[in-house]
Amino acid sequence: MEIHGGNIYKIKRENGKEVLDYSSNINPLGIPKSFRNALFENLDNLVRYPDVDYVELKEKIAKFNGCKAENIVVGNGATEVLFLYMKNIDVKNIMIISPTFAEYQRGAEVAKKNIEFFPFEKDFSLDIKKLKEASKNIELIVLCNPNNPTGKFQNLGKIGELVEYLEKSGKKLFIDESFIEFIDGWREKTAVNLKNKNIFILRALTKYFAIPGVRLGYGISFDKLLLKRIEENREPWSVNGVAEIAGKVMLEDREYIEKTDSWIKKEKKLFFEELSKFRDIDIVKSEVNFILLKLKTMNSKEFKNKMLEHNVLVRDCSNFKYLDNSYVRIAIKDRKTNSIFIEKLKKVIK
Amino acid sequence: MEIHGGNIYKIKRENGKEVLDYSSNINPLGIPKSFRNALFENLDNLVRYPDVDYVELKEKIAKFNGCKAENIVVGNGATEVLFLYMKNIDVKNIMIISPTFAEYQRGAEVAKKNIEFFPFEKDFSLDIKKLKEASKNIELIVLCNPNNPTGKFQNLGKIGELVEYLEKSGKKLFIDESFIEFIDGWREKTAVNLKNKNIFILRALTKYFAIPGVRLGYGISFDKLLLKRIEENREPWSVNGVAEIAGKVMLEDREYIEKTDSWIKKEKKLFFEELSKFRDIDIVKSEVNFILLKLKTMNSKEFKNKMLEHNVLVRDCSNFKYLDNSYVRIAIKDRKTNSIFIEKLKKVIK
Repeated sequence: MEIHGGNIYKIKRENGKEVLDYSSNINPLGIPKSFRNALFENLDNLVRYPDVDYVELKEKIAKFNGCKAENIVVGNGATEVLFLYMKNIDVKNIMIISPTFAEYQRGAEVAKKNIEFFPFEKDFSLDIKKLKEASKNIELIVLCNPNNPTGKFQNLGKIGELVEYLEKSGKKLFIDESFIEFIDGWREKTAVNLKNKNIFILRALTKYFAIPGVRLGYGISFDKLLLKRIEENREPWSVNGVAEIAGKVMLEDREYIEKTDSWIKKEKKLFFEELSKFRDIDIVKSEVNFILLKLKTMNSKEFKNKMLEHNVLVRDCSNFKYLDNSYVRIAIKDRKTNSIFIEKLKKVIK
Repeated sequence: MEIHGGNIYKIKRENGKEVLDYSSNINPLGIPKSFRNALFENLDNLVRYPDVDYVELKEKIAKFNGCKAENIVVGNGATEVLFLYMKNIDVKNIMIISPTFAEYQRGAEVAKKNIEFFPFEKDFSLDIKKLKEASKNIELIVLCNPNNPTGKFQNLGKIGELVEYLEKSGKKLFIDESFIEFIDGWREKTAVNLKNKNIFILRALTKYFAIPGVRLGYGISFDKLLLKRIEENREPWSVNGVAEIAGKVMLEDREYIEKTDSWIKKEKKLFFEELSKFRDIDIVKSEVNFILLKLKTMNSKEFKNKMLEHNVLVRDCSNFKYLDNSYVRIAIKDRKTNSIFIEKLKKVIK
């Protein structure tokens, strides 16, 4: 599946080497100790099926988000929740604000929706006025916020303005907040605060907590009928027992959360400073844990291949709608790894 | 979701007690050591996404089954593979041979198929001649083999006869072999041997290897177009990293496999003998690790509740198509637990 970031397994198969993966956006602090301990303590629980109703897990997620367990739908990664939403939302015409994560389009295609795209501005901000004009015949708008791959975040005032328009015109909004926990003070900024039944909020637990291999995502909705429909049409036990264990403990792991918040604050600033010294790169200012770069003197494929020669994998963004072959995306990792990245980068570009 | 066996979580929530779960059919030998060790050794791999192509996992599964990796589709439990099949197989009219596992119907309903049912004989054998007559307008036949909840197995000769008929009439067969590894000499008896492109074979890895919480199932098909269609419409990374680790080591765990085969052989015989001493119970002779019982003097609900008073959970089978409220299903566990079960049973029925 080439639509996603670097497939490290494929690279290893083809080139026989391990690479420094700057193409995927995972918290470099690694697996939370709380999860590691809980897994060892509860390993024998894996001889049972997970709780098919996920009662305790949903309660923990609801508590983390200041909503009720009945507002939560859990999934095998955010991807399952996205696909479930697309299959069960009763709309035909959807608009994806782009450039953005490719799976919205895939999920919509599998659910046989009509898809249109709407571009962010040149600086990757969102012009609500233009969006209103363009979405007259649209029933559902899809927004990734903070957006992957640009790292830009639309504040709650803007989302509120959009929702007001949706209310009036009977449209829906799907908003993917998979990276929102990386934003300082996100609790005040999430669309969950709007408690609006026209919005569906998607979240991933395994990026922030660095265990994408475990697969745990969830959705938050205030539309009871939609939630009921999703539960009726879903596969039982899709969230595995390890994810169930993880979700129950990680959300209360204050130490990990504080360390992560402190890491992202410091390292993002430092990494930005280092990157801005490169004459032939423009940085798109990100609010999260990855950065979109615009290359001024090289195309993305050439850059990717040159970095690979130095065992570093970046995300070539040329296949994102509305991006051209001057864009690549990189992750922010820990200080030591970031300085290795900078050293390699110096060998490739000025 | 009440269509499944006892929900131990719900019982615990409602009655505040742990029960001896004879309603779910999991290998009592517990988590394979090979998996436990591999998990601890590879835990840090969970900071990566699973291999989206599952190359190594598919190779191990193919080797285990004497087919090629290209014949394998993996899923988040057998359930995902079942749902993917139903969504992607180009047929409208299907026939489910019953009584059987309820998820075939659910998966078919979600995929908007027209569903008919065909009954096993009174002794739960399958009359191929009658099936041929009844399935004239059917495009797909669904068979669970060995069948849940009856424990009966249709031998390869019979399946071959059925396939011959399918070939002639252009029909397909979906055959769920989730419990086949519990059958002595299953490698000679699996429908994989037929290598026929009209058959799709479903397998679960986590019943035999006692980790249903981990979720790993797979399908085997010789229909390249169907496999391509499934891969195109599936969600990426649906098999989690823990399942990936498990699948890679468990299939080669000779010690666990030998122990399991020896356990099922001995304990099934012993448990049958003990159960056959009850005057008011008829035993449906099973070939696998669970047993369907017919109660002569009590209905299944009453029996279930009485057993629950003794902290034992059984599966009330009254909601299976073609079964009435005289049937319950129980698992076969280790000797000590089985004798506890027998003691409790004595308090409930003669």
